[in-house]
Amino acid sequence: MTFIKSDFLLQSAQAVTLYEQFAAPCAIVDYHNHLSPKDIAENRQFANLAEIWLEGDHYKWRAMRINGVPEEYCTGARDPYEKFLGWAKTVPQTLRNPLYHWTHLELKNYFGIQELLNEQTAGLIYEKASACLQQPEFRVQALLKKMNVAVVGTTDDPIDSLEYHSQFVKSKVGFKMVPTFRPDKAYATHDSAAYNLYVDKLSSAAGITIHTLEDLLAALKNRIDFFDSLGCRAADHGLEFLYFEPDAHKKSYAVFKKIRQGDTLSMAEQLTLRCAILISLSRWYHEKEWAQQFHVGAIRNNNDRMLQTLGPDTGFDSIGDFAQAKHMALYFNALDATNQLARTIIYNLNPADNEVFATMLGNFSDGSIPGKMQWGSAWWFLDQKDGMEKQLNALSNMGLLAHFVGMVTDSRSFLSFPRHEYFRRIVCNLIGEDIKRGLLPDSMELAGELVSRICHKNAMTYFRF
Amino acid sequence: MTFIKSDFLLQSAQAVTLYEQFAAPCAIVDYHNHLSPKDIAENRQFANLAEIWLEGDHYKWRAMRINGVPEEYCTGARDPYEKFLGWAKTVPQTLRNPLYHWTHLELKNYFGIQELLNEQTAGLIYEKASACLQQPEFRVQALLKKMNVAVVGTTDDPIDSLEYHSQFVKSKVGFKMVPTFRPDKAYATHDSAAYNLYVDKLSSAAGITIHTLEDLLAALKNRIDFFDSLGCRAADHGLEFLYFEPDAHKKSYAVFKKIRQGDTLSMAEQLTLRCAILISLSRWYHEKEWAQQFHVGAIRNNNDRMLQTLGPDTGFDSIGDFAQAKHMALYFNALDATNQLARTIIYNLNPADNEVFATMLGNFSDGSIPGKMQWGSAWWFLDQKDGMEKQLNALSNMGLLAHFVGMVTDSRSFLSFPRHEYFRRIVCNLIGEDIKRGLLPDSMELAGELVSRICHKNAMTYFRF
Amino acid sequence: MTFIKSDFLLQSAQAVTLYEQFAAPCAIVDYHNHLSPKDIAENRQFANLAEIWLEGDHYKWRAMRINGVPEEYCTGARDPYEKFLGWAKTVPQTLRNPLYHWTHLELKNYFGIQELLNEQTAGLIYEKASACLQQPEFRVQALLKKMNVAVVGTTDDPIDSLEYHSQFVKSKVGFKMVPTFRPDKAYATHDSAAYNLYVDKLSSAAGITIHTLEDLLAALKNRIDFFDSLGCRAADHGLEFLYFEPDAHKKSYAVFKKIRQGDTLSMAEQLTLRCAILISLSRWYHEKEWAQQFHVGAIRNNNDRMLQTLGPDTGFDSIGDFAQAKHMALYFNALDATNQLARTIIYNLNPADNEVFATMLGNFSDGSIPGKMQWGSAWWFLDQKDGMEKQLNALSNMGLLAHFVGMVTDSRSFLSFPRHEYFRRIVCNLIGEDIKRGLLPDSMELAGELVSRICHKNAMTYFRF
Repeated sequence: MTFIKSDFLLQSAQAVTLYEQFAAPCAIVDYHNHLSPKDIAENRQFANLAEIWLEGDHYKWRAMRINGVPEEYCTGARDPYEKFLGWAKTVPQTLRNPLYHWTHLELKNYFGIQELLNEQTAGLIYEKASACLQQPEFRVQALLKKMNVAVVGTTDDPIDSLEYHSQFVKSKVGFKMVPTFRPDKAYATHDSAAYNLYVDKLSSAAGITIHTLEDLLAALKNRIDFFDSLGCRAADHGLEFLYFEPDAHKKSYAVFKKIRQGDTLSMAEQLTLRCAILISLSRWYHEKEWAQQFHVGAIRNNNDRMLQTLGPDTGFDSIGDFAQAKHMALYFNALDATNQLARTIIYNLNPADNEVFATMLGNFSDGSIPGKMQWGSAWWFLDQKDGMEKQLNALSNMGLLAHFVGMVTDSRSFLSFPRHEYFRRIVCNLIGEDIKRGLLPDSMELAGELVSRICHKNAMTYFRF
Repeated sequence: MTFIKSDFLLQSAQAVTLYEQFAAPCAIVDYHNHLSPKDIAENRQFANLAEIWLEGDHYKWRAMRINGVPEEYCTGARDPYEKFLGWAKTVPQTLRNPLYHWTHLELKNYFGIQELLNEQTAGLIYEKASACLQQPEFRVQALLKKMNVAVVGTTDDPIDSLEYHSQFVKSKVGFKMVPTFRPDKAYATHDSAAYNLYVDKLSSAAGITIHTLEDLLAALKNRIDFFDSLGCRAADHGLEFLYFEPDAHKKSYAVFKKIRQGDTLSMAEQLTLRCAILISLSRWYHEKEWAQQFHVGAIRNNNDRMLQTLGPDTGFDSIGDFAQAKHMALYFNALDATNQLARTIIYNLNPADNEVFATMLGNFSDGSIPGKMQWGSAWWFLDQKDGMEKQLNALSNMGLLAHFVGMVTDSRSFLSFPRHEYFRRIVCNLIGEDIKRGLLPDSMELAGELVSRICHKNAMTYFRF
Repeated sequence: MTFIKSDFLLQSAQAVTLYEQFAAPCAIVDYHNHLSPKDIAENRQFANLAEIWLEGDHYKWRAMRINGVPEEYCTGARDPYEKFLGWAKTVPQTLRNPLYHWTHLELKNYFGIQELLNEQTAGLIYEKASACLQQPEFRVQALLKKMNVAVVGTTDDPIDSLEYHSQFVKSKVGFKMVPTFRPDKAYATHDSAAYNLYVDKLSSAAGITIHTLEDLLAALKNRIDFFDSLGCRAADHGLEFLYFEPDAHKKSYAVFKKIRQGDTLSMAEQLTLRCAILISLSRWYHEKEWAQQFHVGAIRNNNDRMLQTLGPDTGFDSIGDFAQAKHMALYFNALDATNQLARTIIYNLNPADNEVFATMLGNFSDGSIPGKMQWGSAWWFLDQKDGMEKQLNALSNMGLLAHFVGMVTDSRSFLSFPRHEYFRRIVCNLIGEDIKRGLLPDSMELAGELVSRICHKNAMTYFRF
């Protein structure tokens, strides 16, 4: 049975035209993901479909667990085909979940496989795909080129040597790989011991002894300069919520001293110190003309038992419900007051916050840079048709869709690039439907320009790639 | 004018097929409602349409009050037909409200009446339906059988003798009636005097003198054993929000002592004590392999004037906006840590929390029981087409719809079972539309299995009926 | 290219019929807006399209800023045509934003211009529209009559002399202009100095020396009587959230004394005093049979830099995320307890609160006045197709749409009245679609009555115009 047809997700003739003529030809700018720079630089070859598809994919593990598949088939010791079979059995239970679409898009686009994956078809599909993966055109770099990827933005810790980025730059492969500065550990102060270990590593990486808050900031600034020299154009931060207090910097000298002595910080002290560090970082991002990204609203590591067994990022996170508006406004206002507010992208995880985020942008748009303030693409749990449509519609209604920098995979998987196709089809479908219904002028010129800006042009300009 | 046609709510040929072939034949498993066990066991006969339709139905009263109908026609002393006329006048003002659909579905499915109800048609409809109600095939048990009900799960207080459940078991009527353990009064500590009266009744019911927290818990455990012996497979709880603190049990000895002395508890003490009691209950539910249900997010009894006149559950409750995510995760995590987390169903009243609830499930799905963590069907104010569709879509996007245990009426009315038909038509319509649009494979086998699992099979397995 | 066609927004034959036969003929009751009473009374003539369209329109400025248009073209010193050109360039970037629809509806309905506005067409459109504006039939009163406006409800401070309302009453123009009592400054206590200045002005306006809280309240009562004498039928309030505490009045004597001495109030004191003042006002509104409106949930003046340059209401506000439910219920309950709860309209800015607001109404509907408690039309950022549809659907599902008092422009612009047409088309489209799909009975009589009530009749009755 052929499932994914050429007009997949495209419900009108206008949508088909927009997709084929304007969206499909665009090279992919995946400015934020969690791909391994090592795998890219070394052009990794995967042994089989289980390895490339299930290793590290907590979306799939989560679905398998809900389906009653024991942990040994998810993250455990079972052999690759057994694990794959655990997934294959789960696939028919994912009907209406984006995993069902992604799975069949990926089988089709990379391996030319059109059958539905289930327990019965698992064997043949595994063989066919794994055989493909033995070929040179299925190594990592070729997989990215096959998807017409122009830019890959990885996510990197300030202490990272970026050795693979340096190595890759020299190899002239035909697409760009740039690092993203992700300093979350520099303000992860809930565990003093772990924090001090991290600060010591940062000290080594920067070659700066860290006694005081100013030392810490100097070390971070040092790493920002280094990242910038290797083409970094963006920072990223994962937070439950943004927090601001006016005199955080002043208060934080003592707080930082306290944690460096190994003492435990109160929640209030943690927030104060984080505010002080983040504000300094944000000012430097502005200086570098980077874009600062904030992914807010997740509650993480909710299952202690599994955290202790498997560690973080293994599928035990979910959507939080924090008040976001006031402190976010105060944070950006403090930067704007001295004209040091960088290009900014905010991503919310709870769709109940969509309109708060969509309208926050306007508060700090000052006519300086078109689309300076961005509301990021539907993220993580929202990375599906409904989630994307809601984000696109709220952004359209409360901001200017025409300046949107568009989709990112945010993924750890080399097979996840069809999510750009997924996004583009949804964009074209919405716009096509509007034309069909008379809600937009019947002009392919106007609509096509809108599509190609969202799919490619805006991101290239915005990030100065 | 015929309003409810055979394809009501079914917008595609695929939806019609799914409904007729897979959904309609399924027996109803109404695992949570507020029907009277006495009425069921004694096979009550209703005198007229007003009695069976308006007695205790705060949904209808609420609409009548908004429509300007005085209280005497809702809960007051007017005679049955006058009250019915008050409702009949209101019906045309409920266009686009689920009451309009329910009303005409109920008239059609039970009484074969197809006219629209309004002031003009009220007289004839009242006569026809009331005449039907004189017949033996309109007694309570026959009404339930007419709707193909397989299981009725009532809602019962721990102090309840369950005499009607015992009596009914012996009568072999052809469907199951099981009790549900609803211990809300065991932690309703805002009013010390009322609480102590309740604890004394619980003491009698359990035959255990209650001085200490441990005594209280022993009495509750005693009732759990008793409920279990009569086929109980689930507990239920109505809360504004779940709350957790690590050392609640230890702190609660003194708190319980304080309230038993007649002192008033602070809000913090109330939450601590509630946490201690609930956690113990939850552990026993796990031991019994029961499902624990949590209905959270209502604000109740908002109108003091009407509360004093009419009491609770009379139509003066509404949707709250509490932070739910963090404490809910902490609560389940505490149970999971010792592997004592029972099958769990969480129901939210505020649809802004949909995605918080949908993603909470994955944090505690551990591969042990398929679909162990459930997000309950759209409830109360959300029990309508939009509310159901949003719940079904969010569940599909963020969990596995295939494991959903489906619809419950949550109703006090013997005429409310067409709400299962309503739900099923909506499920089939969504899935049918997806097939029509190419978003699901064009396979009635796959889709039909999904439908029959949601409409019947999953609940039967999940609750071990 | 003709964009806005006769069936704009009407996707079914039923919708077209409903709009043409029932909605379009209704006179407009714009019971809440921010039009200038002076401009209306003096029948202002505008010099050109820039003056009537861009002066004070922060919606357009906001879009221009996001589009990278410098401030001098928004609020600055550029000449009118340059500013207009800045807007014209921005218009094609607003595709999918309501501004794109409003712009072309306004050009068509007032000036008969059907071209799309962009940089190329800007010159001719500016000339044509500006030429029109020289004609007497484009003065303010004629513009309102052209749109079939029956009532205009302006928004006025208690200290306002209402001289233009008095003047207008005498001029017998053919529509009504009534004031609305908006006492926000009477409890804007965050800035003691500004507050005291305001209280002094209020003192003069009322002719009452204000030393104590009771004096303040007496002055406000005096102004309520005065407003009432000029046809005022409603009050309005802009708040982040409603707040209630039982003994606010008693506590507030000292608090008011404190601020009158020039001391700064704590946040808690501000809330207490505001509660005391508002509750007294609410009781008088009930006495006068006014409707009290509460616009809640905005966060305002988020950009200090722009606030200092441009002042408030210049496009730097956004949607907040406050808890609303509990205190709102307490506030209305306190009034209801003594049977002093006036007709009430609540407007939320965050659509995540839609269902909280929709269900709040039922708590205080007591059968006294049909539709007494109202959930106001989608407002500000929500004033677009999606926002309106969500409000209409939630209201339908959880209340009685048939009693809805419908649309208001809430606008500062004399060209914004096509937003009523926009709203009406959306209402007719939703109802028409329901009929087409069999979700409502196929009766134009029933549906038409519903439409004409929402578009006109309900508001006329509710406000006693």
